[in-house]
Amino acid sequence: MHKVVFHIDELDKWDHTLSNITNLLDYGLVNKEEYHIVVLVNGDAIKGYLDEHLRNAVEQFSREGVRFHACNNSMNSHGIEDKQLPENVEIVSAGIADLVSLQEQGFAYVKA
Amino acid sequence: MHKVVFHIDELDKWDHTLSNITNLLDYGLVNKEEYHIVVLVNGDAIKGYLDEHLRNAVEQFSREGVRFHACNNSMNSHGIEDKQLPENVEIVSAGIADLVSLQEQGFAYVKA
Amino acid sequence: MHKVVFHIDELDKWDHTLSNITNLLDYGLVNKEEYHIVVLVNGDAIKGYLDEHLRNAVEQFSREGVRFHACNNSMNSHGIEDKQLPENVEIVSAGIADLVSLQEQGFAYVKA
Repeated sequence: MHKVVFHIDELDKWDHTLSNITNLLDYGLVNKEEYHIVVLVNGDAIKGYLDEHLRNAVEQFSREGVRFHACNNSMNSHGIEDKQLPENVEIVSAGIADLVSLQEQGFAYVKA
Repeated sequence: MHKVVFHIDELDKWDHTLSNITNLLDYGLVNKEEYHIVVLVNGDAIKGYLDEHLRNAVEQFSREGVRFHACNNSMNSHGIEDKQLPENVEIVSAGIADLVSLQEQGFAYVKA
Repeated sequence: MHKVVFHIDELDKWDHTLSNITNLLDYGLVNKEEYHIVVLVNGDAIKGYLDEHLRNAVEQFSREGVRFHACNNSMNSHGIEDKQLPENVEIVSAGIADLVSLQEQGFAYVKA
């Protein structure tokens, strides 16, 4: 089983990341390799969780097992409240602490 | 022996990455440290393999032992065929799966 | 004890990184977790060490235990001399070699 965290901190990096995740999931299916995927979103990219097109993608990927994290500091900076996030998005206190913790747990890191 | 993968996914990040590789190889020579270097290219950066200036650099670095990988999904998105790549570039099915695999093998990760 | 290296290679990424460090230190205080933080600066971002606002921040964070590294190759490219750096900034021969070494020592990597 493979573990990878994608780090998105710029709004315009969402689309390429979602495309990378699609390709990784396809690769896993074809090669019978399991990928445990987390997407940690902080900085300006946090606004992506309010975008309709991206919300639909987040909800679809969540159903396929991808986990999405939102940095609470970034939410505060951008005036975003818990109830505005798509379903199943997990709020973490500090995005960087989450990235450190995941890498300590053996997650590979990919910067968007 | 040290292992490092450079991840380039934006076309304008090629030059700085090649400069970083030059400096790393020089550092290795001076300090008698061996660096096993892989450059994984995906996204729009894949078009760099068609640029004459960059092709020359890729071929030169390949002769010095640096390995260049091309993401097949990115090649398909940009209509690039195998025969258009510089010699010695290795095609990988999914760039992110390659980055995960290399990190699992102990490669340090540097995002361009 | 946690270890993390921030990699800044673009001048406009300094502010967000310093904000991330503030949040990480706050998180550590609240949760009684210790973070050993290094900031490796190369490329154009090296000019940040000459900016008055950033110098003040670097000096303040240094007093809180954050370590700042400057890539000597980048200093040479931008005509920056040792004496121009803020106090306590450590010069490293090659920024990438430093990033590799820190990851080998178990530092998590976060790209600005």
